[in-house]
Amino acid sequence: MPKNILVYNSLSKQKELFKSLVPGKVGLYVCGPTLYGDIHIGNLRTILSFDMIYRFLLSQGYEVRYVRNITDAGHLVDENGQEHDRVSVHAKLNNVEPMELVKKYTVNFHHMLRVYNALEPNIEPTATGHIMEQLDIIRTIIKNGYAYEKNGSVYFDIHAFIKDHPYGTLSGRNIDDLLQETRELDGQDEKKFFADFSLWKSVGPDALQSWNTEFGPGGPGWHIECTAMSTKYLGQTFDIHGGGMDLKFPHHEAEIAQSLAFCGKSPANYWLHANMLTVNGDKMSRSKGTSIHPLEIIQGTTNVFEKPYEAMVVRFLMLQTHYASTLDLTEKGLQAAEKGYLRLREAYLALLSMSLDDSSDSPSAHQTEIEEALKNAELAMCDDFNSAKALSYLFELIPLINKAKHEGLVLSKSDIEALKVGFKWMLEDIFGLTFEAPQSDSLSKVIEMLIEMRHRARADKNFALSDSIRDNLKTVGILLKDGKQGTEWSIA
Amino acid sequence: MPKNILVYNSLSKQKELFKSLVPGKVGLYVCGPTLYGDIHIGNLRTILSFDMIYRFLLSQGYEVRYVRNITDAGHLVDENGQEHDRVSVHAKLNNVEPMELVKKYTVNFHHMLRVYNALEPNIEPTATGHIMEQLDIIRTIIKNGYAYEKNGSVYFDIHAFIKDHPYGTLSGRNIDDLLQETRELDGQDEKKFFADFSLWKSVGPDALQSWNTEFGPGGPGWHIECTAMSTKYLGQTFDIHGGGMDLKFPHHEAEIAQSLAFCGKSPANYWLHANMLTVNGDKMSRSKGTSIHPLEIIQGTTNVFEKPYEAMVVRFLMLQTHYASTLDLTEKGLQAAEKGYLRLREAYLALLSMSLDDSSDSPSAHQTEIEEALKNAELAMCDDFNSAKALSYLFELIPLINKAKHEGLVLSKSDIEALKVGFKWMLEDIFGLTFEAPQSDSLSKVIEMLIEMRHRARADKNFALSDSIRDNLKTVGILLKDGKQGTEWSIA
Repeated sequence: MPKNILVYNSLSKQKELFKSLVPGKVGLYVCGPTLYGDIHIGNLRTILSFDMIYRFLLSQGYEVRYVRNITDAGHLVDENGQEHDRVSVHAKLNNVEPMELVKKYTVNFHHMLRVYNALEPNIEPTATGHIMEQLDIIRTIIKNGYAYEKNGSVYFDIHAFIKDHPYGTLSGRNIDDLLQETRELDGQDEKKFFADFSLWKSVGPDALQSWNTEFGPGGPGWHIECTAMSTKYLGQTFDIHGGGMDLKFPHHEAEIAQSLAFCGKSPANYWLHANMLTVNGDKMSRSKGTSIHPLEIIQGTTNVFEKPYEAMVVRFLMLQTHYASTLDLTEKGLQAAEKGYLRLREAYLALLSMSLDDSSDSPSAHQTEIEEALKNAELAMCDDFNSAKALSYLFELIPLINKAKHEGLVLSKSDIEALKVGFKWMLEDIFGLTFEAPQSDSLSKVIEMLIEMRHRARADKNFALSDSIRDNLKTVGILLKDGKQGTEWSIA
Repeated sequence: MPKNILVYNSLSKQKELFKSLVPGKVGLYVCGPTLYGDIHIGNLRTILSFDMIYRFLLSQGYEVRYVRNITDAGHLVDENGQEHDRVSVHAKLNNVEPMELVKKYTVNFHHMLRVYNALEPNIEPTATGHIMEQLDIIRTIIKNGYAYEKNGSVYFDIHAFIKDHPYGTLSGRNIDDLLQETRELDGQDEKKFFADFSLWKSVGPDALQSWNTEFGPGGPGWHIECTAMSTKYLGQTFDIHGGGMDLKFPHHEAEIAQSLAFCGKSPANYWLHANMLTVNGDKMSRSKGTSIHPLEIIQGTTNVFEKPYEAMVVRFLMLQTHYASTLDLTEKGLQAAEKGYLRLREAYLALLSMSLDDSSDSPSAHQTEIEEALKNAELAMCDDFNSAKALSYLFELIPLINKAKHEGLVLSKSDIEALKVGFKWMLEDIFGLTFEAPQSDSLSKVIEMLIEMRHRARADKNFALSDSIRDNLKTVGILLKDGKQGTEWSIA
């Protein structure tokens, strides 16, 4: 039975009790990247925020259908008053077929997300994979009177729309202000009104991406793909729509308008937005070299930071800030996160190595302390996924673990079990953290561990076990040699 | 400057000198898998064969655009005289959305190919991503008089087609025999002739995959996707079309007919077919448990083989047989390949460890021997990608390397350089083999041994021991995961 979860809904601008449309199931749509290039660390923050939210919903027993799209067409960019498709623009620059560019950056994207231990979404649809679905919706919007065709392009008609529906609620745009704004329309004078947006964009005969329609050759506008794909895979109204804060306007506002124009329904009940990431207090910038690729931090090849940081340190750093707050990435912050992550790792690995044999059967003096902290961590997550607070409750338990490991504090069997289960659940399942052993030489670590096991077996006069460790190692070509300095090993 | 390459063209049934349409560039299309499930080791052989061919073309300086599709709709299967979409059938069985199924198996597929070190294609298009392109071609074929619509489905009209074009050349089907064949049409009596094939298939309102068209709701037939995608990314006629031998008829024959019917051109100049893989002399069979997943061989969880074999051993085994010959997978063959691969690895690692300091500056007695063998290996590859023969030339040099390593034979600087460059080029770049240092072998052996110890401990109900093995391994960063296929391990 899932616990009550409060979520901050960007649409109502308040925390609300989360209630899914179908009990036990959640439909989650998150706007993914436009893959004409590599994504930056700010985009990664959005994805890892929703990875954590997805994992928490799963941990509460929800069956989640998580849809995150890849934009491979339609993300228009304004150049000298003309809208161009970003993927096509970059494909032309690189002299490759657009889908070749997209394939390359999709491979990079997936690789990077594996490094950061993000779960795969259940469906990862693409804009080019849903041209027909987009056209079906565009035709319906035209039929409903909320879009118009001009020279082979189709535009959303803001003036017609606001006669029947609200516009601007999510982003807090005041529609009267918007209507009174006048703007030069430059080359875009096909539009009746500057804020009308493209649903379908006519292209010339030399366009790299083009589909044949009754409007003539063209390609989709950006916003319509998300409406088409979320509707197809999650229904006209679904539970949670997520994305980066920068997508609130115009992208998400356009999605809401499109859905209302198409079927009269608002697409999502809860809108969640991950906040922005800045670098040293500033917006990331390509020209300043602060538009950092997530792998550069690990490789230590940014122009901004002095040393490399592990992916899990970066993930830990992000978890230390609430997803809906801005996060400033600095060397100092990374160093502090590294220290915190290493402290956590040490305690967690120590906890995992604790044997129940050394524990007490008697009731524990620490039971309440442990239960309270673990419960509070979960409740913090139930309060709009407050991972920062949840982490702080886990950190409260670290001194206890360290005392048990190093200072002879005896915990009860049930304490150790509760700590192991609770930490694993929170750290690995929900936070998606992984904990590599500090030394990279796994083979020697494993053999040292076996030598230690063998010593203990001999001390317990369990010679069957100690001999079997030595003999088994020999069969795989590892020789143990007992000497004055202890046991040494070599590869035969 | 690329060398002359001879390829066996399945269309002309002879070896031909390869000449690309545009000098220095190659368009390569290979039929990929239908991802309603995991692929088997036979499918992998096809992919690794073309991976080797792709790598060899790159090594000759060609700029190759390699397109390999994923079929996520349209692969029809006949059930009681009715054609159904395989992806939809399996999605219904698993009670998931078709694209959820496809995503899951696409992730598996890519993971498996990384393990086997296959290069990514430049473009990996999907059938659902090209519905409009397929419809455009279908409309043109109807207009050209080679297809007819019946009850919302569109069929290719063999009788109309053969009035103007040849049919059956690739697969060697005799068209007169075909025409005289009579067959019960069962539920398929929409077709005028039993060998007419579906271009577009009407579906009912409860279909899991459906697109709206002027023919009514439906989905594509299988063959048309490859025509649409190869035309879009490589042009109406391109250089090389590859696939498994089992696709010759009807799939590839249909592709040729569709292209001729659509634009009057034959799609590919060279048709290359990777031959079948059998297991212990028989066709693979799900019911006999011989339909082996490529990862099962590595994990040692097949019902067929006694022990696990490394991915590179399997790759080596495949390279030892010409891609166009059948390959029978047996324990004996795998053992021999393992021995051969280990011998090669030992020599190659020895070669890489050779220092130029220990070499001689004087002219070498072995220069001709080395040059000849390396040249012959390359020429073998130029003769229809004869990797088996190329490998045998490299093996001729192994005694020389071993003598230099172990018996004090002094090679010249230029000999060592030539060997290093030649072996790396052939083994890593062209054959896609990787050579892990033997130490990590020891790690897996020790861990496999520990997994076995743990299984025995559990069988003996010695849970203290079995848990301590798991927990101790975790402290050194080795994670055990119990699953249906046994216990797997990974480095955290």
